[in-house]
Amino acid sequence: MNSIDRLLRPSLRGRRPYGAPQLDVSVRLNTNENSYPLPQPVADAVVRAVAEAVPHLNRYPDRDAVELRTELADYLGHDLTIDQVWAANGSNEILQQLLQAFGGPGRVALGFTPSYSMHPILAAATGTDWRDGGRDEDFTVTAEHVVAQIERHKPDVVFLCSPNNPTGTALDPAVVTAAVEHGDALVVVDEAYAEFARAGTVGALELLPGRLRLVVTRTMSKAFGLAGARLGYLAADPQVVDAVQLVRLPYHLSTLTQVTAVAALRHRKALLANVTVIRHERDRLVRELSDLGLLVAPSDANFVLFGGLADSAAVWQSLVDRGVLIRDVGIDGWLRVTAGTPGENDAFLSALATVLKSA
Amino acid sequence: MNSIDRLLRPSLRGRRPYGAPQLDVSVRLNTNENSYPLPQPVADAVVRAVAEAVPHLNRYPDRDAVELRTELADYLGHDLTIDQVWAANGSNEILQQLLQAFGGPGRVALGFTPSYSMHPILAAATGTDWRDGGRDEDFTVTAEHVVAQIERHKPDVVFLCSPNNPTGTALDPAVVTAAVEHGDALVVVDEAYAEFARAGTVGALELLPGRLRLVVTRTMSKAFGLAGARLGYLAADPQVVDAVQLVRLPYHLSTLTQVTAVAALRHRKALLANVTVIRHERDRLVRELSDLGLLVAPSDANFVLFGGLADSAAVWQSLVDRGVLIRDVGIDGWLRVTAGTPGENDAFLSALATVLKSA
Repeated sequence: MNSIDRLLRPSLRGRRPYGAPQLDVSVRLNTNENSYPLPQPVADAVVRAVAEAVPHLNRYPDRDAVELRTELADYLGHDLTIDQVWAANGSNEILQQLLQAFGGPGRVALGFTPSYSMHPILAAATGTDWRDGGRDEDFTVTAEHVVAQIERHKPDVVFLCSPNNPTGTALDPAVVTAAVEHGDALVVVDEAYAEFARAGTVGALELLPGRLRLVVTRTMSKAFGLAGARLGYLAADPQVVDAVQLVRLPYHLSTLTQVTAVAALRHRKALLANVTVIRHERDRLVRELSDLGLLVAPSDANFVLFGGLADSAAVWQSLVDRGVLIRDVGIDGWLRVTAGTPGENDAFLSALATVLKSA
Repeated sequence: MNSIDRLLRPSLRGRRPYGAPQLDVSVRLNTNENSYPLPQPVADAVVRAVAEAVPHLNRYPDRDAVELRTELADYLGHDLTIDQVWAANGSNEILQQLLQAFGGPGRVALGFTPSYSMHPILAAATGTDWRDGGRDEDFTVTAEHVVAQIERHKPDVVFLCSPNNPTGTALDPAVVTAAVEHGDALVVVDEAYAEFARAGTVGALELLPGRLRLVVTRTMSKAFGLAGARLGYLAADPQVVDAVQLVRLPYHLSTLTQVTAVAALRHRKALLANVTVIRHERDRLVRELSDLGLLVAPSDANFVLFGGLADSAAVWQSLVDRGVLIRDVGIDGWLRVTAGTPGENDAFLSALATVLKSA
């Protein structure tokens, strides 16, 4: 036998690893990273915390990440306590743990695409059946639509995403409460980009009290600018936190990750200062893309989805040729761009204007 | 509804999280950690590497961990190259990825217990049926026994463990080759403790050439003394490495983990110097436990399984009462002790002698 293919799970055969193309260009606005390096005082605090921990790396990490979860609860506010918070290696691992505990063979997960593309991939990886409830042409979902899809598919897990990736718009909280009140699924609201929401947006943390089946997932990759540290977390009823602990790998979260995240959370004022700048830049991208005559989805995130492109794949490639990498998220006629630094956004807007003129 | 139980996967209901009891005692010889803190020059190198990486944590890690896998291949030798090596957050995540790719619903994993207790837990978590081939009373497994169990259970994945945890003895390589040559399973040899093996032990890396279905898993938690950094890895045919990349979470391995492991590997001579001391201490534990009239399993690991105890649970508790934490691995009459520093081992031996005398 010269091929491993026959041994591989049939559903994986012929597939390719998930992930955005990694190209070496000067302006990278394709994975919704925070373009700002860590402010020096925060970087110094992280290095000090790591330096203190390194000699003791011979010991396993705190399996329950008590200090980190306490800091996360404090950051989230809403009177949350450690028993309502859980952390893992990125929100991908959080979502995988939720599906390992509440999904699996014979169970159904419902999402509303286009949305975060890992949701169906994680469902498949955990043997959970995936149902797509879809969205309106303007990428919105209403409470009525969500309820109708829940009644139709009878899911065990519902994925909502607010602000939605890749479209950018936050959900009306009424959609979340409707999803919890109809059917009996675990309702997961993926709020990876919550900190970038426009003023007045109500997040799902507000809705947690009294809702046993509601889970809010967050990450330090975006607003905190810590994509490289891989720290995702959730807030939910303590029973949900107990449940994911049944499927978490023991010692899943390294000491380095824990001390880094704790130090960052203790310097969150400095670290989150860039969020305001990024929101301004995001609003500027929305305006200037509209001024170019393009369709633009309202954005509460650190990225903007724009459309009305006759050949979006060609525009994407022409931008790459000009040293600007954005994301083709697979919606014909539309592309997604991360709000970077003012200079990166200028480079993108200028390259796009040129590309559109020459098209 | 006041309980989440009905939403939980049925196989998880009523279960408790896996993990050794964490007790605050002075001598911790229960989780096979390396008792030696990182040598100062290595700790300094790690902190320098982290300090260089921290400002750029706003960017995602290298998804393919190229530098790290290159260093790991160099460490393993045997002419291995990067395309034969894969890394993840501890060997638990490596084993989980292997089961996600090659196990799953409708598939069978075969192990030989008592062995590493995460093997059946990971099988359950990935929906893989678990079969136990068992061991002889002296905890050995022969090639004939393994072949007979493979023919009986027709597994898709076979777990071998060498040196076996919790019993301590390395496998005859003939057992590994027999497992690969009979049936058509992926054969996973868990070599978490390989570096501690007695002189003359042949590891499974030797056996990789020409064996597409053989996988060797390793960790930096034990010999490298980096349990807190969570770095496990595998060596196998490039097709196996391609396969796990279909199920790995994107950016699963943080920048901090990658640069820490790379720095440690570049200082491996200093880091592995303690392995010799630990092997001597392990051999001393074997001798002194035998001298106490106890049964002792031959050990190639950094721990020793000893038996002949009338009431092993009572002995375990009496040791805890004297400030010494070892592991009750659930084998009646036997307990497992990690080879710690000479002082820790003295404390353990002295406490045990007292406990046995008063029994």
